[in-house]
Amino acid sequence: VVVVGAGFAGLAACQVLATEGRHAVEVVVVDRHSYNTFQPLLYQVATAGLNPGDIAYPVRSYLRSHENVSFRLGEVVGVDLDKRQVVLAEGEQLSYDYLVLATGATTNFFGVPGARENAHAIYTMEDAVKVRDRLAQALEQAASFGPTGGGLTVVIVGGGPTGVEMAGALAELWSLEISTSFKNLEKSAARIVLVEQLDRLLAAFDQPLSRYCEQALWQRGVEVMLGRSVKEVRPDRVVLDGDEEIACKTVIWSAGVSSGALADSMQVGKTKGGRLAVEASLCLSGHREVFAAGDIAGATEDGGVLPQLAQPALQEGRHVGRQILARLSGEKETAFSYKDKGIMATIGRRAAVAELPSGVKLRGTLAWLAWLGLHIVFLLGLRNRLAVLLNWAWRYLWWKRGNRVIAGV
Amino acid sequence: VVVVGAGFAGLAACQVLATEGRHAVEVVVVDRHSYNTFQPLLYQVATAGLNPGDIAYPVRSYLRSHENVSFRLGEVVGVDLDKRQVVLAEGEQLSYDYLVLATGATTNFFGVPGARENAHAIYTMEDAVKVRDRLAQALEQAASFGPTGGGLTVVIVGGGPTGVEMAGALAELWSLEISTSFKNLEKSAARIVLVEQLDRLLAAFDQPLSRYCEQALWQRGVEVMLGRSVKEVRPDRVVLDGDEEIACKTVIWSAGVSSGALADSMQVGKTKGGRLAVEASLCLSGHREVFAAGDIAGATEDGGVLPQLAQPALQEGRHVGRQILARLSGEKETAFSYKDKGIMATIGRRAAVAELPSGVKLRGTLAWLAWLGLHIVFLLGLRNRLAVLLNWAWRYLWWKRGNRVIAGV
Repeated sequence: VVVVGAGFAGLAACQVLATEGRHAVEVVVVDRHSYNTFQPLLYQVATAGLNPGDIAYPVRSYLRSHENVSFRLGEVVGVDLDKRQVVLAEGEQLSYDYLVLATGATTNFFGVPGARENAHAIYTMEDAVKVRDRLAQALEQAASFGPTGGGLTVVIVGGGPTGVEMAGALAELWSLEISTSFKNLEKSAARIVLVEQLDRLLAAFDQPLSRYCEQALWQRGVEVMLGRSVKEVRPDRVVLDGDEEIACKTVIWSAGVSSGALADSMQVGKTKGGRLAVEASLCLSGHREVFAAGDIAGATEDGGVLPQLAQPALQEGRHVGRQILARLSGEKETAFSYKDKGIMATIGRRAAVAELPSGVKLRGTLAWLAWLGLHIVFLLGLRNRLAVLLNWAWRYLWWKRGNRVIAGV
Repeated sequence: VVVVGAGFAGLAACQVLATEGRHAVEVVVVDRHSYNTFQPLLYQVATAGLNPGDIAYPVRSYLRSHENVSFRLGEVVGVDLDKRQVVLAEGEQLSYDYLVLATGATTNFFGVPGARENAHAIYTMEDAVKVRDRLAQALEQAASFGPTGGGLTVVIVGGGPTGVEMAGALAELWSLEISTSFKNLEKSAARIVLVEQLDRLLAAFDQPLSRYCEQALWQRGVEVMLGRSVKEVRPDRVVLDGDEEIACKTVIWSAGVSSGALADSMQVGKTKGGRLAVEASLCLSGHREVFAAGDIAGATEDGGVLPQLAQPALQEGRHVGRQILARLSGEKETAFSYKDKGIMATIGRRAAVAELPSGVKLRGTLAWLAWLGLHIVFLLGLRNRLAVLLNWAWRYLWWKRGNRVIAGV
């Protein structure tokens, strides 16, 4: 079995194949990085609340105890479905009996002119580090030359969980830095604008939670613009519908993800957004030895495509692992069924929203504590958990003396 | 007062000027990075024992409580001694009444052909991160394609404290990785060669400590070559005197540092190695309003130039701060006098050497514990101290399950 991608979905599939399939399969995991990224906290790396190392976990350490799983560093550039081979960037081929595609997605700029060139995504670790460096640079430039021409203005495009969390964390970072390290800057010079095309934030949540979130962001100084779309992104400004312009040197793009290059290169059925169309058991029609899981897979539930989040990825990965083992032992395949564990998003210190499948809706401190706890639990590795705890204690308990954790590099 | 460089020397000068000179001077610190690097632990970043953020501390956080000190991000490319201005890379000028030059040094490749192109230094954070990525890449390539052609051989040039510490830490990293994450690699495929031109390691230390260090390195699998010099560094091999060749794809250069570009550009007296010649009070002859401290300064003690280490830098920085204040208040200048606090170097877990000015010589576990304690104390910032403690606890107490802390990025 070749598993392409060591994210939530790929590693979940490995876990099943390594434990339940210990004597049945030989697994090779391929990823272009040697580490797994805990994507739900990338925005905290981008806002200098966490170190990159705190949310990266070596794939080899994760797989260490499993004798039937090995790791291969490399970028998969294509799949030869007929020869049953994946093609690596180095020109090498790996043959498979079963293939798990879990390479994730890439940021979707929806064809907005200038967005790809001038806006920053926060989907990968490299993205997050670039955003962090850009924000640090913006502060230093404003300190040296004044916050002219939107130098301290950040426009965040997309009011889903990523955009909301980024806006909240950035508001805290700006406010902390300006009150401590950059005392010569005026707080009013630092603008954060969150632009959302729909008429409310967090469309996946209940209406009252969306409103709470909007208010909490305004309270933190974020200008929330609803029902507005971005027409163009230029190096020094964002052009909205109606040709309104916002002078701005930093644009964060959190409007959504699409499929990645690998999915694009494959001549198979796709869903809307370019994700791989899958059967109920998550294999591709016509190539039933190939499975897809995570952001690349267009798994459906009740007729709708599942959101590109951690929980669907984990569950799909596990399901795929079990299907492969079922096939090998001649058991019947089962259809994937998503078990909704709820959704949550955090705005900042003591402000978050959560919606549980039981219908319980949380907001404020309680939701925030639940968010803290769950993210610590789901992080890979005890050392990372302790390091994140340490950084959060710094950030949230000793707020006033909080340092930027990372200072460049 | 303009202070160029936010390393040990520059910040020590600032500290004095900010506290004792609170009402007397206005200080601007200029550095090309927004953070201070704790250089004595760079080799641990290079060997993936610590995160870059653990040993970087934001200069602005350090200066935060001092109202008469401000920070400016920028690279100083020249000094106009007659106009009393420093020139920034952006073309801007900063005028000074007093100038403190504390920009450090750069790696000295001693004109060895190919060294600059093919060998890695470990003097700056960027260097350390590059070495770390190179080592991770070497392991992954050896795992995928076999450890052929010196792919897992590292030659370390220079047997001073940096070379010894790097060799010891690398031996631990190699041994840990191969026994846990890269089980398909043979331990014998991983060679570490430490080349020193003199007939012993750690020439600044007492003979018996040098011998202990040599033995401790051999025990850890490091091949120590004494009395040998490097003639050429090529991408795939190192050529020693007598034309002996070592197949090797990674070369670490720790043979010494020279002056940097800024010192080179200045038409003033230099010491051997290009450091700025200074008077007894650490100011430049002919330009007594300009002081130098740290690696860039050729301060002498008993006729010999002081080593380019943290302690001289700290003491020189403080001295320079005091001289400026003395001049302003019309007091007499004093000559700099180095207070030797001893030297130490660590080889690895429970192995280090230390030599105190009282004549006491330590080796082994005791020296190692002293080393751990001192480095924790001297790190900037409580958060960094806790983070380093956490990583060290991981590394030294739960040795067997130790993870690489950093996994790329």
